Amino acid sequence: MTLYIIGIGLDNEKDISLKGLEKIKKCSKIFLEYYTSRLNCTVERLEEIYGRKLILADRDMVEKDAEKIINPAKESDIAFLVIGDPMGATTHTDLMLRAKEADVKIEVIHNASILTAVGIVGLELYKFGKTISIVFPQDDWKVQAHYDVIRDNQKAGLHTLCLLDIKMKEPSKENLKKDVGIFEEPRFMTVNDAIKNLLAIESERKEKVFTEDTVCVGCARIGSFEKKIIAGTAKELLEADFGAPLHCLIVPGKLHFMEEQALDIWK
Amino acid sequence: MTLYIIGIGLDNEKDISLKGLEKIKKCSKIFLEYYTSRLNCTVERLEEIYGRKLILADRDMVEKDAEKIINPAKESDIAFLVIGDPMGATTHTDLMLRAKEADVKIEVIHNASILTAVGIVGLELYKFGKTISIVFPQDDWKVQAHYDVIRDNQKAGLHTLCLLDIKMKEPSKENLKKDVGIFEEPRFMTVNDAIKNLLAIESERKEKVFTEDTVCVGCARIGSFEKKIIAGTAKELLEADFGAPLHCLIVPGKLHFMEEQALDIWK
Repeated sequence: MTLYIIGIGLDNEKDISLKGLEKIKKCSKIFLEYYTSRLNCTVERLEEIYGRKLILADRDMVEKDAEKIINPAKESDIAFLVIGDPMGATTHTDLMLRAKEADVKIEVIHNASILTAVGIVGLELYKFGKTISIVFPQDDWKVQAHYDVIRDNQKAGLHTLCLLDIKMKEPSKENLKKDVGIFEEPRFMTVNDAIKNLLAIESERKEKVFTEDTVCVGCARIGSFEKKIIAGTAKELLEADFGAPLHCLIVPGKLHFMEEQALDIWK
Repeated sequence: MTLYIIGIGLDNEKDISLKGLEKIKKCSKIFLEYYTSRLNCTVERLEEIYGRKLILADRDMVEKDAEKIINPAKESDIAFLVIGDPMGATTHTDLMLRAKEADVKIEVIHNASILTAVGIVGLELYKFGKTISIVFPQDDWKVQAHYDVIRDNQKAGLHTLCLLDIKMKEPSKENLKKDVGIFEEPRFMTVNDAIKNLLAIESERKEKVFTEDTVCVGCARIGSFEKKIIAGTAKELLEADFGAPLHCLIVPGKLHFMEEQALDIWK
């Protein structure tokens, strides 16, 4: 019996590969990792095209109760669906290691990943340094570590891909205390939010890592025909409307002549 | 009308996405980029599943006669199929730029790429430096630039993904002179060939970039259920049989504790 870890791509219900769909149809349980990303379609639409009911796996299930996903694979074929490519995120490497420990056979079915798909903006993929996540500020606690990563990548001439926070199933502070299982509406960080975040840190740190004049690339819905890409200064992008999620932001490092040419397309 | 640049994945005829297949079926001409990579199935098998005849596009057509692909897209929808993800290779960025110049609308349908799929070995993707190609030596002319890239990546603590040469449609030296259009059998560089190549350069340069004791990761058929991954010293991998193509070789940089743990799986 096998645990199939299946990438379902970046856009919608039609991004699944024929091979992935074939496996989904023969698995006894199908989990969908449903807290690190989102598609441009509903879960119901996935179920319709896949022809199967999906079990939504939130962070608690994947990180704390992984055996709920792994153990059934000792008895029958199980699918664990991941938006993008399963190898794009370390969480899933962790799931693979645990499954190996439990002596459960694993097969991975790859798909498109944001890490490769961002190549569409015309920046060389191998010149991307460490990828960062920019998260919504919580209470008075402001994370600044991502600012340091952008600075270090810049020093090495490397581009930085900033993935932006999403809150799929989080309780309000009040409901968290009460532990009543009531969750807020999903929230998605915009390119504009991300730029404000970086400018706020800049105004405190003043290391000239990310100013209003920093040229960057705002992206929305990469992998979809409805994608939007704009290259411009932080100040310019702050005014732009990127529309529906997911958004991401690229802070370029040193630009090669060809890369500059490519970015011109999006200006 | 649109030029659809469609990734068809890494393994076989079943790696196409539902969206990609839908577009292929409605295009008037379908080109397959057929010189930088290969799948684990025949072109006939692709044609059977896609339900369409494919026009094989070799290097000359894509690099010198790109208008043969771009111009028809002014009249009707055209598909250009690329093994892996179209954004994985700069050739296709070039095709995109030319199409934009010719005022032809382009849409990209992404798919799995070797650049992300290699994450399956357990090395962090953002710690990969510049990707290199190791090519078959020609006459007495030995390329050594890739050795320098491995060295520079190592200095920066970065991993190097080495893609290995493939010759899909090359004339022999004799037939090239005669220009008779007769081509050799396809050839694919093995992990063993690549290691021999690097050791040969090492014995000349003696910079201790790649010795018999260098720990590396040999990979074959990544993206397929029949993949083979072995981690070990260059000397050990030199003896290993990786089977059918495509092969690639990873020369790790500085290993994080978690990465060491992951590599242990493949020893």
